[in-house]
This record gives sequence, C-alpha cells and structure tokens, in this order.
Amino acid sequence: MTDDIARLAAGMADRLVARRRDLHRYPETAWTEFRTASLVAGALADAGYELRLGGEAVRRESMLGVPPAEELAAHMERAEAQWGDPALIGRMAGGLTGVVGELKCGEGPVVALRFDMDANDMDEARDDAHRPHREGFDSVNPGAMHACGHDGHVAIGLGVAEALAALRDRLNGTVRLIFQPGEEGVRGAGPMVDAGALDGVDYLLGGHIGFQARKTGQLVCGTDKFLATTKFDVTFTGVPAHAGAAPEQGRNALLAAACAALNMHAIPRHGQGGSRITVGVLNAGQARNVIPPNGLLKAESRGETTEINDYVFARAKDVAAGAAHMYGVDHAVAVVGRSASGGSDPELAARVRRIAEGMPFFEPSGIVDSVDLRGSEDFAVMLAEVRRQGGTGTYVMIGSDLASGHHSFHFDFDERSLAPGVELFVRCVFDCMTLPARVRA
Amino acid sequence: MTDDIARLAAGMADRLVARRRDLHRYPETAWTEFRTASLVAGALADAGYELRLGGEAVRRESMLGVPPAEELAAHMERAEAQWGDPALIGRMAGGLTGVVGELKCGEGPVVALRFDMDANDMDEARDDAHRPHREGFDSVNPGAMHACGHDGHVAIGLGVAEALAALRDRLNGTVRLIFQPGEEGVRGAGPMVDAGALDGVDYLLGGHIGFQARKTGQLVCGTDKFLATTKFDVTFTGVPAHAGAAPEQGRNALLAAACAALNMHAIPRHGQGGSRITVGVLNAGQARNVIPPNGLLKAESRGETTEINDYVFARAKDVAAGAAHMYGVDHAVAVVGRSASGGSDPELAARVRRIAEGMPFFEPSGIVDSVDLRGSEDFAVMLAEVRRQGGTGTYVMIGSDLASGHHSFHFDFDERSLAPGVELFVRCVFDCMTLPARVRA
Amino acid sequence: MTDDIARLAAGMADRLVARRRDLHRYPETAWTEFRTASLVAGALADAGYELRLGGEAVRRESMLGVPPAEELAAHMERAEAQWGDPALIGRMAGGLTGVVGELKCGEGPVVALRFDMDANDMDEARDDAHRPHREGFDSVNPGAMHACGHDGHVAIGLGVAEALAALRDRLNGTVRLIFQPGEEGVRGAGPMVDAGALDGVDYLLGGHIGFQARKTGQLVCGTDKFLATTKFDVTFTGVPAHAGAAPEQGRNALLAAACAALNMHAIPRHGQGGSRITVGVLNAGQARNVIPPNGLLKAESRGETTEINDYVFARAKDVAAGAAHMYGVDHAVAVVGRSASGGSDPELAARVRRIAEGMPFFEPSGIVDSVDLRGSEDFAVMLAEVRRQGGTGTYVMIGSDLASGHHSFHFDFDERSLAPGVELFVRCVFDCMTLPARVRA
Amino acid sequence: MTDDIARLAAGMADRLVARRRDLHRYPETAWTEFRTASLVAGALADAGYELRLGGEAVRRESMLGVPPAEELAAHMERAEAQWGDPALIGRMAGGLTGVVGELKCGEGPVVALRFDMDANDMDEARDDAHRPHREGFDSVNPGAMHACGHDGHVAIGLGVAEALAALRDRLNGTVRLIFQPGEEGVRGAGPMVDAGALDGVDYLLGGHIGFQARKTGQLVCGTDKFLATTKFDVTFTGVPAHAGAAPEQGRNALLAAACAALNMHAIPRHGQGGSRITVGVLNAGQARNVIPPNGLLKAESRGETTEINDYVFARAKDVAAGAAHMYGVDHAVAVVGRSASGGSDPELAARVRRIAEGMPFFEPSGIVDSVDLRGSEDFAVMLAEVRRQGGTGTYVMIGSDLASGHHSFHFDFDERSLAPGVELFVRCVFDCMTLPARVRA
Repeated sequence: MTDDIARLAAGMADRLVARRRDLHRYPETAWTEFRTASLVAGALADAGYELRLGGEAVRRESMLGVPPAEELAAHMERAEAQWGDPALIGRMAGGLTGVVGELKCGEGPVVALRFDMDANDMDEARDDAHRPHREGFDSVNPGAMHACGHDGHVAIGLGVAEALAALRDRLNGTVRLIFQPGEEGVRGAGPMVDAGALDGVDYLLGGHIGFQARKTGQLVCGTDKFLATTKFDVTFTGVPAHAGAAPEQGRNALLAAACAALNMHAIPRHGQGGSRITVGVLNAGQARNVIPPNGLLKAESRGETTEINDYVFARAKDVAAGAAHMYGVDHAVAVVGRSASGGSDPELAARVRRIAEGMPFFEPSGIVDSVDLRGSEDFAVMLAEVRRQGGTGTYVMIGSDLASGHHSFHFDFDERSLAPGVELFVRCVFDCMTLPARVRA
Repeated sequence: MTDDIARLAAGMADRLVARRRDLHRYPETAWTEFRTASLVAGALADAGYELRLGGEAVRRESMLGVPPAEELAAHMERAEAQWGDPALIGRMAGGLTGVVGELKCGEGPVVALRFDMDANDMDEARDDAHRPHREGFDSVNPGAMHACGHDGHVAIGLGVAEALAALRDRLNGTVRLIFQPGEEGVRGAGPMVDAGALDGVDYLLGGHIGFQARKTGQLVCGTDKFLATTKFDVTFTGVPAHAGAAPEQGRNALLAAACAALNMHAIPRHGQGGSRITVGVLNAGQARNVIPPNGLLKAESRGETTEINDYVFARAKDVAAGAAHMYGVDHAVAVVGRSASGGSDPELAARVRRIAEGMPFFEPSGIVDSVDLRGSEDFAVMLAEVRRQGGTGTYVMIGSDLASGHHSFHFDFDERSLAPGVELFVRCVFDCMTLPARVRA
Repeated sequence: MTDDIARLAAGMADRLVARRRDLHRYPETAWTEFRTASLVAGALADAGYELRLGGEAVRRESMLGVPPAEELAAHMERAEAQWGDPALIGRMAGGLTGVVGELKCGEGPVVALRFDMDANDMDEARDDAHRPHREGFDSVNPGAMHACGHDGHVAIGLGVAEALAALRDRLNGTVRLIFQPGEEGVRGAGPMVDAGALDGVDYLLGGHIGFQARKTGQLVCGTDKFLATTKFDVTFTGVPAHAGAAPEQGRNALLAAACAALNMHAIPRHGQGGSRITVGVLNAGQARNVIPPNGLLKAESRGETTEINDYVFARAKDVAAGAAHMYGVDHAVAVVGRSASGGSDPELAARVRRIAEGMPFFEPSGIVDSVDLRGSEDFAVMLAEVRRQGGTGTYVMIGSDLASGHHSFHFDFDERSLAPGVELFVRCVFDCMTLPARVRA
Repeated sequence: MTDDIARLAAGMADRLVARRRDLHRYPETAWTEFRTASLVAGALADAGYELRLGGEAVRRESMLGVPPAEELAAHMERAEAQWGDPALIGRMAGGLTGVVGELKCGEGPVVALRFDMDANDMDEARDDAHRPHREGFDSVNPGAMHACGHDGHVAIGLGVAEALAALRDRLNGTVRLIFQPGEEGVRGAGPMVDAGALDGVDYLLGGHIGFQARKTGQLVCGTDKFLATTKFDVTFTGVPAHAGAAPEQGRNALLAAACAALNMHAIPRHGQGGSRITVGVLNAGQARNVIPPNGLLKAESRGETTEINDYVFARAKDVAAGAAHMYGVDHAVAVVGRSASGGSDPELAARVRRIAEGMPFFEPSGIVDSVDLRGSEDFAVMLAEVRRQGGTGTYVMIGSDLASGHHSFHFDFDERSLAPGVELFVRCVFDCMTLPARVRA
C-alpha cells in the first residue's frame, strides 16, 4: 500500500505545483479567503467529503479581528471575479471562510489534519530575482501576499483529500480535513474549535513548509515551544487643533501612540522564559498642520508560556492607558487574535519519524525529532482542545529550500516538497488508524 | 463711485453664497485644484482678463510636496467628472493649478490681489450640527474639506473680478488677480513668485475670512507675525523580520519614527521668540507580526523669525538622523513646503481702516489696526518678493462668526461676510490706484 | 547732594569689590544663606537699621523647596565655621534666612529695595581662564557657585545701606532694605511677602547685574515679561528586582522618570505666548543590575502669562501620572517654588532713565527704557503684592561685561559696575522720596 | 573521616554566624573590600596558607569599573577604622583586593574553591521586619549592603580554610582558595584569571547561598545557563544654558540620557535565546533651571550566549550614539565589567550529589542536578579558563530560606546553612583529590 501512496503522490506533483501557483497568484488575507475556501469546498465535495461550511465551521461570535462588513463584501465580489464559486462564497458571508470536510470510513479513530489558507498583509516583491514575479504567478491582490507558504499548505491539503478519497476503501476510521482561515493573526483556530470542528478528534496532525526546516529533504517530526500570543489593536482619540495658532487646544493622539509603541517595546523581559512584544503598525494623524486627533497601533505580545504572555499583555495595557493619560486622550484596547502555548506529543512524533525514514525523499540525517518554534501558531489552540478531550497530536515541518525568510517580500519555497508532503500526511493518516480511538464519543 | 461699488457687491450676495457652497462641495487639496482653477480661469477669461495658466503661472521646478503623477491624473479625471472645464484642466497637467488674471487699465500702479483656492486634507463632519451637511453642501471628495474658508476666498475673488471688470473704465492702472493653489502646506506662493506672478507689483493685498476676526463685522487691517515655516517629510527604511522567531534580524523603522516624533516635539523652545514643531502624520509598519521596515513622518517647524524656524528645522533633522542611527535604519528628509516670516505695512493698513470705516457693515469698535497671526501663510513669501522689488502690501482678516475653529471638522463661517469682502477689496484697489507706482519696470 | 552720593559710592568701590569676592568665595544656596544673611544683618544693625529676622522676615509655612532639617543644620555649622555670626545664625534656624532692615526718616513714602542673596547649585569652573579661580576667590563650598551675580547684588545692597545711613538726615520717608534668600528656585519672595515684608511699600526697586545688559555702562530702566513659573519635583517609587533573574518582578521607576522627562518636553507650545518646560535634574536607580525602584525629577514650567504657565504645569502633571501608570509605579508631585508674570512701571522706569542720564558712568546710547526678561524672577511676586496695595515698582539691569552667560561655570562680571550700582539705587531712593505716598497705612 | 569533617563543621557553626554578621555589618562594594580582604588574608596566613595578594592576585591592567583614586583612599581609611589590618590593606592599594591562599599537600590534583566577597551598592532596610536591623548587624556603611549573601560566602570560605588546615595531613594534592572581589558588576574574575589565579587548576568549585535554592535543606549540584553580560557606563556631555532665557543655546544631556535609556530597553528580543538590557542608574543635570549639560547611564546587557549578549550590547551602543546625535551632545561608552556564558560539568555535579546525599542536612527530594541560573556570575569566566586549560568545574547553590529576593532591601538568609556549606565544600575537596590531575603543569 505504501507504494500506492507514493505513486499517487508522485503522480499529482505537477498539479500540486499548478494549484500552488494559482493560489499564490490570488492570495487572500484573514477572513477574506472566499476564493480559496470556495475552491477547497468545491474540491472536497467533488471528492465525496461531507462538508461543514459557514456557521457550521466557524463560530461567528468567537471571531476576532474581522474586517468591516463593506470590506468583506468587496472581497466577496473580488473572489467571484477571480473565479471563486458564487454559491459557495455566498455561504461564507461575514467572513465565515473555514471549511471542514469529513470522510467516514467505518469504525476506527478520528484523524484530523489541519491546513491553513490565509495570506499575509503585505505587497509582494516585483523584481526579477523573485521567481513568482519572474514566472508570472505573483500576487494580483494589492496588500496580500503568500509569504508564509500557506498556498503550499492548501495545495498539499487538497492533494491529501484526493489521495485519501482514492484510497478510502482501505481506511478504517474517520478522516477530517480542516481548512482554517486566519492563521496569520491567530484568529481562525479559536472560532473553529468553538464551532466544534475538533470534537471527537483522536489524532490531530498539522504542519508547515519550511520554517526551521529550511532545506529540501529535511523534516521536523514534532514542533515544540509554540509561543502563546495576544494580538491587539489600540486606538487613541484626541482633539484636533491648528498646529500654529493654538496647539495647546489639541490633544495629541499621535504622540500618545508613539509613546505607547516605544514604551511597550521597553516592557521588561520575563525571567521565566522568552517573551515578545511588537507594535507592527502605527498610523496616526490626518494632516501635517493639525494636531493629530487619531492614532492606531496594531500590536502583539508573545510568551513561552501563557503566563508570560499574559504578563506582557497586561503591562502593554498599562502602557497604553498611561500614554493616553499623558496626552489627555481617550483610548481603547481590542483583542483581535490569540493563541496558546504548547508542543507536540513525542510518541506521535516518533511515529512520524518512522514513516519519514521509509520515504527516500527525506534525508536520514535531516530528520529531527523536535525543534522549538519560538513563534506562534494557533494550531496550538486546536492541539489544546484535542488534548482536553483526551486526544493527542503533532505538528511537523516539511523541509524546503527557502528563497528568503517567512514574511519577507521575497519569500518562496521549493515546490519539490509538495508531493512528499502529501505522501507523508496520507501515510500518517493510515498509521494513526492502526491506533486505538482515545476520545469517548 | 463708492455707492456703485457697494451696490454691485450687495447685488451679487446671493451668487457669492451659491458659488461658495459649490466650491465647498467640491474641495480640492494642494496641487489638485483642477476643477476650482478651471472655473476661476473660465470666469476671468469671460470677464475680459488676460490669463496666465500652467507653467506661466507656476514654476514647475519650484513645486514642493507634489502628489505622484498617477494621483494627479486621477484628480484631473475627477475634476472633469465634477464639471471642470476639460480644455483648461488640460493646461494644468502636473498640478500647475495657479491662475493669474490681469486687467490693464491705462497708466498707474500695479495692484495685485491674492486668493488661495485649496482645501484641507481631512474628512468633513457628517452630523446635523454641521450646516454644510445639514444643508447638503458638504464635501463629496473623500479626504478633502474646506475647513479654512478658502472656498469663501475664491468666491470673493471671483466677485472682485466681476466688479472690477464692470468698473474698468474708472480704473487707472493694472489689476492683477492671483489665484493660488497649495496654501495649505505653504507650497503655492513660492512657485508662483518664481514664475513671475508678482513681478512689477506695487501694492499687494490678501486676506482671510475669520482667523483672529471671529465675529461678523470685525476687521483686521494688517496682519503681523506670520510664522516662518518648513514643511518636511521624513522616511525611515529598515528591514522586516518575523516578530516571533527572529526579531533581532529586523531593523525597526516604526520605532525610529515614533522615537523621532517624540523627540522632535521635545526640541527646546527658543529664547528669542515663538517656535512650533508638529508631526502631523505618522504611518509605519505593514503587518502586526512583522518588524516594521517602513516609517513616514509628515512634519512642520515654525518660528517667529526665519532664524528661529531654521533652528527648529535643523534640530529636527538631527533628531531624525539620531533616531535612524538608534534603530539601524536608513532615513531621508524631504522639504515639501516653506514660507517666510513677515508682517503688513502699517501705512497701507491705515488706508484699509479708513475705507472700512466708511462701510456700515464693519462695526467701528471691531476694526483693529493689526493682530499677530501666530500661524503661517505663504502670502508672506509673496509679500517678501513685493518688498524686495520696492512695493508694499497688507493682509486683512474679514470677521465672520465661526461655527468652529479653522482646520476642525465642524468649521463653517458666516456667509454674510462675502459681499462686504468683495466691496472692501474693490475699494482698496481703487484707493491704491490713487497712490504712485513704486516699482521700476 | 548728587555729588555727595557720587563721592560716597566712588569711595567705597574697593570695599565693594572685596565684599563681593568674599561672598563669591562662600556661596550659599537657597535657604542655607546663613553666613551671608548673618553678615548682612550684622552690617545693617551696625548701620542703625531696625532689623526683622527669622520668622519676622520669612513665613515658615509658605516656604517651598526647603532642604531637610539635618542638611540645614550642617549648613548652619558650616556658616559658623566660615565666620558667620553664631547668634544671628541661631535666629535663622530652619532656613529663615531673609533679612529686612528699615530706616525711618520722618514723613514720606516707604521706598523698598530688594537684593537677592543665594547662589546656584553648581560647581564652579577651576581653570585659569576663570578669574575667580585665577585670583583665588572661587567657591569653597562644593555644589554652590555664585553664577548669577547675587554676590554683587548683596555687595551693592550693603553699600546702599551704608550710604543711606550716612545720608539719613536728608531723607524724608522710610527706607526698607529687603535681603531675600532663595531667588533661585523662586522660593524666597513668597514667604517674605507672606511675612509682611512688603506691607506699606509705596515704591519698590530691584535689579540685576548683567542679564540683558551685557556691557559695562549699559542700563535697562525697566524690565518686562517676567515669566510666570512653577518649580516642582516628581518622585517615582517602584519595586526593585534582580535585573537578570526576575526583571518582571520589578517596577521600573527609572524608565517612568525618563519617559516623563521626555514627554514633558514634548508638551505643546501655547498659541497665546511663550512657554517653557525643563527637567533640569533626573536621578534614578541604585545599582546597575537592579530594576530601579526610585526616580526623581526636578523640573520647572514657565509661561508668558500665569495662564500659560498653569497650562504647562497641568499638562506636566498629566505626563507624570501617565508615566507612573505606564510603569506601574507610584508617584508624587511637589511644588517647590513659584513666581508670577509681570513687568515694570514705565513712569518709574522713566525716572530711573533721567537719573542714569545724569551719571557719567552710563553711556547715553546704552540706556534703554525696557527689555523683556524672558525668564523668571520672584521679584515679580513682590511687585504684584506692592501693586495690590496701591504701590508701584521697577526692576533695572545694571550693565556689566560678562565673562560668560548667567548660570554657566565661567560666569563672572565686571566689578566696575558695583559702585555705580550703589549710586544709582541711592539716587533712586532720594528721587522716590520726592513722590507722594501711594499706599494707605 | 566523613564524621570528622561533619564534626569540625558543626563545631564552628556559631562562629560562622558571628563572622557572617560581622561581615554583614561592614559591607564593602567592588574593589573596596579592604577590610574583608585583610581579615581573609590574616586568617589564611594564620592557618598556614601561602598568600598571594595585591598585584599577584589581581592584574591591575585588567580591572574594569574601578572607583577613582581618592575614593579608594577613603575606603582604605574606612577599612582601617573598621579594624581592618593596616599592613595587609596597604598591599591592596588601588583596589587590588583579591586574595589567594594555597595549601600544598603533596602530589595530587589542584582543587580550587572560589568565594566572592563584595556587597551591593544599596542602602539596607531599616525596619524591624528586617532581622539584620532588628538584631543590630545591619550595614554601617552608607550605600553598601550585603544583599546577595556574599557575607555568608566569605564566612563559609574561612570555615573551609580552617577545616582543611586542620585536616591537611589527610589531603593529597593542592587546595587553592580564591577570595574574589567585585563579583557584583562581574569585575573581579577577569583580573584574577589574568593574574594567574586559576593556573593549573584541575577542579574548580564555587557556589551561592540561596538563589534558585530558596529553602533550607535544598541543594543544586550544578548550575547552568550563566548569562553572558557586559556592564557599561554611558556619559553624555552637552552644553548648559539658562532654561528660561536661552534654552536653544543648550544641548540637553539629560534628554539624551533619558531617550537612550528608554530606547535601550526597546532593543528587540533575540530569537535564539534570552536577552536582557537594564539601565540601572541614570543621573543627569545640575540645577532645575539650567539645561542639563551632563548625563550618566549605568547599564548592562545579558545574553543566553555570548553572541546574544554581543548583539544587545552592539545595539545599545547604536542607541547611545543615536541619542547623542539627536540632542547634539557628545557621548562615551565605557565597559566596566563583563562575563561569559557557560554551565557546570554534569559529572562533577553528580559527585556533588552523591556527597550531599550522605549529609542528613540536605533533604533527598531537595537535591537537584541542575538549574538554569538565568543571571550572570563571573565564576563563568574562571570556569572558562579552567576548561581552556583542561580542567573542569561546577557551581552549586546551597539552599537557604530567604527573607526576600536577592538584591532587595530586605534580603536575608537562613544562617543554619553555613555549617553544612563548609562541610559540603570540604568533602568535595577530599572527593576531587581522589580524581586524577587533568592539567599539565
């Protein structure tokens, strides 16, 4: 059977590349993955998967950091114009862009795989050193770029869907494929968990192209040290005034925002483990000669543990409040995303290793049991939920030569890693189905 | 003749209000006044004025703070869609939106009047407390609002043009009407001076609705203490990086910008007179979880004298360079506007007082000889040029009840001041023509 | 009589220099002028003046910015060791170092002269370019230096006292000599006013060596634009912690103080007139590797009017509170000095001009009616009190070549100005006595 | 023999407490440990140790962060007044306060023990909740407090010296006792290494009371994750000016220092491991109304690896230079201490565990093999030198109930840990002497 899987995966290699490039060309940021999700849902339905869409896949009340309604509506139009399926898109109104597809194949454990679909909020490089530009599949959507490889994840996920459907007769148990929106900003996992997408899952697998596995042929079998994180916006509201004639009548929201940004970065490190604080965006002011009445920070805290992250976020709120008081302006803090800390199950990672050791694509010396992520991934939220229920999981990194680091303008990966990715996940599903169910219905 | 002027002005009162409201509805910011300028040029041509347009009115090489070409092109389209004259607009390509109209009426001095046309970069209030909204003439152009009364200035200027044309047989000398773009940002005066718009002017008059004359019926005959100013942009360019995994590989342009903004405001006051420094806009960063590689400040310095302004600007450049060094980012400072210090000629102001005392509209107790502007106006650049040549000038403030301060969202003025404004300027022109020419040809 | 005065003053020129140098050698900062005040009191008593000392001269409850009791006690010991009079010093315990001497010479107005006695909190230059060092009369008191010329003021005051005593038969009215402590920090005037030192004064004269009269032979007859000011200390109290092992357990008072200092300097200028804000001293922290639990700012606000100063001080308090909130530390703001805005009486200044024009020492072209101080002097508090009662006053500047600016390490003045200073004040007293009393008893 | 050691240690328990309290009462900060070092040297000499003092123990050229000569001289006087030995103190002039005592006992390895002697720069708590105050052994030296337990370390070290001398007949090899000055500020180890104090050492032991072993009866056998660190001072030199009259003529070193402090704390975390940056002290300015011409920061960087520390220190230097440029002031950065990263030898730690397991004082469950220090200790410099030569070492933590954290005002430890500390070290020496020599002479 192993050979069948290998053959199936190898056979779809060109289509995986084509699909990845199509997705790369039409990147969609968090909660606007209408085109991507409609393509995914269509493909899953075609392959015989039972679908959960819209409110069945994503709990609306749990969504954080959702764009305004008119912006979402514009994205729905765009997605249709970019050959998304209008009927499916229509079921995703309000940004409910998560998709769950399930294939029930008799008695056995529930094995879930999670693939994230969203792109980054950034403009792609437009120079010939950048292959996507050179070969004409760079982003056509302004302000959006697949700079983290989720285009590859979706391509792998659809390849897995196709392969498992082809092999469904041999499966014993239930396969659940979870296509998640909004991993950037760690927004999508929570609302999918709250909608029940992880209910009853015995084994959860997820993964990432590249990251700390920066060479093709490498594999990380289990990822640890997911950083807990809180994503938050701070708005400052002051009073405008003529900067020449009456500056004293203004209340300066730009300086409050600048002061808050600076002092947030000065929040002390934590003695018990790593922490991060980043103000990634600051927009303030309206005109050069008007005391700025408005200020916005987009920020995030992180911590090696949830406690450390909570500490940093609590201090950041103090900084925001203090800065507002300093400048006599109003302020508000809104949480727009959050994720947990956590790590992979070593036993499950060991099984991944054994499978990978059987695949010639992976270099034996390039297979490692575990690395520390030192970043955030809301896969950790799903993993925590699965564990709460009694299940377990692991998060792999599929090595790939990277043109440039994740989230950089020139990010690109080695597409030769796509087909082996499909093979690995499919074989892991089969492997997990030899294990007992862990979660009581 | 005084009665004729009064009658003419009174007779156009309703049309002045209509014109002002039309202009208020279609505000255009600096260098994009295509619609306004084409209406002005059309009206001047119809009234028999000799026109200077485009490069004859504005020296392209002297222009500062010009929007990018594609933005200008979009504004030209917008202006046409808003019933600007396409032929005239075509002559203003590149933002050459200044208009000079001249009426030569025999021997005598050259008397110039200057009216500024541009709107502010801000969104207008949309509540019923705001008359322009309540009565349906609020701005239809996003990001633009006449919050400084230049709509009224243009209406007055066109009224003056019409009245003087009607009375041209009685004039002895030359009338030159200068409609200036880009007063906000003090950008328009310099390039018009450099194009020769002030050449040969013996007497220059200009003015403003409201400002320190905040009650209808008041008049300031001469304005002093124009603040010298420099408008400048600072851009910071850093290196992006993943904020969780490798923050140390980034170079943070947001923090450089925030630090520069804060420390610019901390530049010491000057012992020899008033100074100002304002960072009106700060935009930095691309995504919440990426070390921000970009930062932009839009700022201005001011000083009671040119020396004081130069001091503040020099220190601001040090602050920008220091902040860049701190954060290991590149930076650039671009000057996008500038104006001089200066004040009005007391003798000419005294003549204005005598004229105003003959107009029942102005309350005798509300007429003052002089006030300090404590703001910047690039009329000061024109005044300096006129003085350099041997001429003289004054800048009046025509009192008007204000709904809210200049540059605020709720700015509005009392339209009853428009017709008396026309009358005052027309009578001043006649008065100046009784004086000798001062400038050698 | 004019000749007698000139002769008397000229005759004491060498002694004035000697006295000034003695005072320069033993500088005493605010509320610690035990030696100086005891010398003054002794000299006044010897010359026949009626003395008010201690609580009669200074209201204890009004004193601001008083050093701790043990420090005052150490200064009393020091003053005795430096040949101050122990009995007189004993009457000044607690820092009550003001001295009032009165000479009643029959009917006539009450003419008061005020001389300030205190030194600056700074170390004097110790290089040969600095005459006081070169000639051996530089400060022996660490942390104290006469860098503002008050040593000269006291020398002149004692010269005036001696001359008027010698001429007392010719006086008609009452002379009151007020030797004030704590002008630096604007601390001494208020408590002397509250103790009644200005009660019944018809004419008040005061003055300064140098300042805007930077050349020997110049004279400013009346000083205007005294800046209102508030002197204040801000203390921040946090929590120490090991900076390596547990930084998160600390609360950083150093960063709160640094942040407050920076943002105080960024308080917007005021449209209605000049303002100042200065944090002159910041001391924070205890050890390099301990999160700093303590922070102290010594600061001052100023304004061209009391309202402007109040605005700046109010905003500074907001900044302090906001910085404390930011860093989770406690804070307290203590006012340690304050003064009013104000200016001189032009009529009295005109009389000073006429007197100076009769003195060959002053260059006619160097005598000016008025200059703007653009600094603070608590003489303004006394002047406001005299005006409140119906009296009037002026503040002169006696020109003197300065080696370096006031409050600089190398400050020194031209001692040739001392004797003419005595002559000017004595003649002013005689001149005022020809005027009617203004204040009702 | 084990029993003999236990008996010896138990028998000196009261004297250890008395000695610790004497040392606690007379704390001495880095390079001023004249009294402590002279007591140590005297005791070692009395016990028959061969002494290295002064330049033999400490290389003068390698010393960082040395107080000025006059301060050192004053401390020598103080130490004599506090019953230090004048002759021995005389050999330590210049702060050469390290002491090495050696006992050669035939063939065998060289076993070195290191004890640090210095106190912290802070004032001790003076309330009855604080036992040293309540029981009368709190610090009599202003600005110095044993808040880290080095008083206990010296007491233990002298107990070890005495015990080993008593047992010298049974030793096979050389004992070298290293009493190090200036551990605070990580200043003492480097110059002692450079003077050869570690030459030929096969086995190095050191340790600390408390730290992560916060309960009496606990023991950490090997300490890891010593943080690399750089201690540095930054001085800013500006220009003073009158804050009211001419602030623009000043160059503000206080704001440069405040800005540098704030922005140093904002240096990004490092993705590869923990980092720290702390400005522990900021002193700037001279007088409230003078633009501050001086500013001083005492700061430190740390890193889990030397590379991370180097990164933080390099960025801190950029921040300092940028802040200086911003404010137009000069600046200088001086390194005053440094230490390396590193950790203990697990095999040696395992031997310590076995010894401890044989001592009833230590709770079996409280003995742990290793903890991460997450702080800096220049023992790491000595350890690196021993390793370089071929030797090895470990650093223990002797558990002790702590009244409050290290470096806090209320720090105190449980003196019952002193005698077991002596026993442990003595037994370790005997144990190491059963091992082969590792370093070639």
